[in-house]
Amino acid sequence: MIDLALIGIGTGNPDHLTAQAVRAMNQADLILLPRKGDAKSDLIDLRRTICAQLLTAPVRVVEFDLPVRGAGGDYLGAVHDWHAAIAAVWQTQIATHLPHGGQLALLIWGDPSLYDSTLRIADRLMQAGMDVAVRMIPGITSIQALTAAHAMPLNRLGEPVTITTGRMLRAHGWPRDAGTLVVMLDGNCAFATLPPDGIAIWWGAYLGMAHEALIHGPLAQAGPRIAAERAALRARHGWIMDIYLMRKEQADAS
Amino acid sequence: MIDLALIGIGTGNPDHLTAQAVRAMNQADLILLPRKGDAKSDLIDLRRTICAQLLTAPVRVVEFDLPVRGAGGDYLGAVHDWHAAIAAVWQTQIATHLPHGGQLALLIWGDPSLYDSTLRIADRLMQAGMDVAVRMIPGITSIQALTAAHAMPLNRLGEPVTITTGRMLRAHGWPRDAGTLVVMLDGNCAFATLPPDGIAIWWGAYLGMAHEALIHGPLAQAGPRIAAERAALRARHGWIMDIYLMRKEQADAS
Repeated sequence: MIDLALIGIGTGNPDHLTAQAVRAMNQADLILLPRKGDAKSDLIDLRRTICAQLLTAPVRVVEFDLPVRGAGGDYLGAVHDWHAAIAAVWQTQIATHLPHGGQLALLIWGDPSLYDSTLRIADRLMQAGMDVAVRMIPGITSIQALTAAHAMPLNRLGEPVTITTGRMLRAHGWPRDAGTLVVMLDGNCAFATLPPDGIAIWWGAYLGMAHEALIHGPLAQAGPRIAAERAALRARHGWIMDIYLMRKEQADAS
Repeated sequence: MIDLALIGIGTGNPDHLTAQAVRAMNQADLILLPRKGDAKSDLIDLRRTICAQLLTAPVRVVEFDLPVRGAGGDYLGAVHDWHAAIAAVWQTQIATHLPHGGQLALLIWGDPSLYDSTLRIADRLMQAGMDVAVRMIPGITSIQALTAAHAMPLNRLGEPVTITTGRMLRAHGWPRDAGTLVVMLDGNCAFATLPPDGIAIWWGAYLGMAHEALIHGPLAQAGPRIAAERAALRARHGWIMDIYLMRKEQADAS
């Protein structure tokens, strides 16, 4: 029996962790840390730092190489294959390090419910017949880190908010009915595909980390600045994680 | 000069607070706690408990009576009047307890960016000429507490999520394009106004608290159960805070 804790760790600031998250880390028998290749070495370093700073119990911490997601035209198919490959690696790690069961913890960037696949990969273990009980520990998402960094509300008074992905924005444009739009997982500046008139943007990268970067303004002016800054930062650090929020001038929620 | 920290405290579990939030509380000169009348005494009790448990520095904690929001047909007008009244009370408290300026902290349910008006009220102080610098400390929202309690993802794989209010859902129905819909601030079971076919609902009340309640299932069956349980819990506790997530069976995001 595996008691699997999916622990939200926030967006890069060890101070984002809640007391609940720190306790769950310390109650684990094993913490698995995914290595994503050299480009994102800051991220594994951050998880190592969090373990070094916050573990007071003798918890075993094991690193493993995360399989790489295949490219190709069929996005969802590639994601499903990738999840299957990760589930297989987890099974091997569990068989090696927790052969008689126990408490396994995974440190999830942001919150385990939001654009994170760990829960779906855990479902695969259960479907494969493994006895797994999942517990989720909420974490600060990059959405909250973005609004905090800009000291702004997420929603306009009483109005809705839509959260989407760069892929969706590029494919379908601005969602009908949306007045406030948060875009995540955008590797390619999908905001640049929008007619910018009447749209303001608030962008943030490396939120909560030492090299946090923020830009905001009318999309027509700020968009090109963000695209240039994003490329420069990505070249400098070897990776980037960013997010943005856009609002249309007129309430468009009726 | 007032350095105003808006500190997200999560949804009722003192373990939801981040290390950043605890530090900000302890750095304050003054923490103002709003009293909302007897009905919600659990909430002021919880804030008192959080202060008692987490303050290690000699921070002054002052309670004040929160003005009551007027009823009436003009929702936004009533909200604006209410914000003006709260800003006036803050000004009095600041003049009394921080006449020479200093660090003021407010403990915000959930996260200060999400359906919370504190930032807008702070803007009123600035517009009135007070020298205020605002800092936001992210907190766990009831959305994350809900998905954690149900151990479920917020979004379907790669799909958008819409967050709205009970008032909006009642007035405008299910938003076009939305596959996943989170409803907050719903005092009156707006889900009951939807044609329930093909919709599943996950509901939670008092999330993170000792008397947390959860119901999920197809809306046609779970909806009436939620309405009955909600009324019973509200009668028993004198107040309720709840939230729900609904999904349509078919991806509806194109």
